[in-house]
Amino acid sequence: MGRWQPDARERLQLAALALYGERGYEETTVAEIAERAGLTKRTFFRYFADKREVLFWGSELLEQQMVAAIEAAPASASALGMIGEALDAAAVRFEEVREFAGPRHRIIASSRELRERELIKAASLAAAMARALRARGLDETAASLAALTGTTVMHVAFEQWVDDPGRRSFEQIARDALAQLRELASTA
Amino acid sequence: MGRWQPDARERLQLAALALYGERGYEETTVAEIAERAGLTKRTFFRYFADKREVLFWGSELLEQQMVAAIEAAPASASALGMIGEALDAAAVRFEEVREFAGPRHRIIASSRELRERELIKAASLAAAMARALRARGLDETAASLAALTGTTVMHVAFEQWVDDPGRRSFEQIARDALAQLRELASTA
Repeated sequence: MGRWQPDARERLQLAALALYGERGYEETTVAEIAERAGLTKRTFFRYFADKREVLFWGSELLEQQMVAAIEAAPASASALGMIGEALDAAAVRFEEVREFAGPRHRIIASSRELRERELIKAASLAAAMARALRARGLDETAASLAALTGTTVMHVAFEQWVDDPGRRSFEQIARDALAQLRELASTA
Repeated sequence: MGRWQPDARERLQLAALALYGERGYEETTVAEIAERAGLTKRTFFRYFADKREVLFWGSELLEQQMVAAIEAAPASASALGMIGEALDAAAVRFEEVREFAGPRHRIIASSRELRERELIKAASLAAAMARALRARGLDETAASLAALTGTTVMHVAFEQWVDDPGRRSFEQIARDALAQLRELASTA
């Protein structure tokens, strides 16, 4: 109890998701999450700043990996080609947490505070991708348009993926959505 | 003082913008805004729910007018053609409030709470446009992609317009941004 355990973070996340689903996000305390996970509050705060951050753990890493994919894209890649590489990088992360994604998504939808937090994270991701695209030579407007197109496709693909009865991969759904956006944009 | 005056709302908005700029948004009270406008707190609350809403007055009307533009678009219009009509409708509203737009934009950028509120409004607008596009026959994915492309172009165009030294019209800047997005999307 309370000592370092390799899976403490994941146990806390699972306990939080379970409690938020059962009682509601607002009604759940950090003490209850720690107790459900068989850990102490002190251990909780070693991993997460507060009960909100349990739901957003990993978003910095996701952002870094999407930015890294833009930086590593071939020199010949177009703006949306680089965005496609970033979405492929996101797909790897998403598949790793597929089992948590549905419950997490429903909890966030239930709370205005959490929806606002999610939107701030998406805006931060778009800003980071825009910086990476400018570093790849795009002008400011093109970089912003392409980066926000990236978060648009990510959002639309995520909504489909999270409840997809056919369990298609995020990578495939995002590629299809990006292709559909290209088609919409090419229609006069 | 306190009785109905035709320009009370605008006086309160100007007073709020001035005080938020001078002292900061957090530090300004409703009483101070009312006093600066030569009105009472009671009059303030006849127009606005709180000091935050002074900055977001008109956003429901903007949403309605953008949705109406989608509904009124010609039958032959493409998805992004309908988004272009919605952006033209937004342009009419924005030019009416051009003098407030810069100060308002800087105040919102200064506060996380206000940025979150702005993002929620943009998400609400995208959802409303997506509903209107579905009513025009688009499937759910296409409607969401096109609507979020609309808020992307609006955001990028607004950032350019609000500080444009050449004072180009929002309509022109938004049309150029939409054309640039189409070009990005057509590049393999």
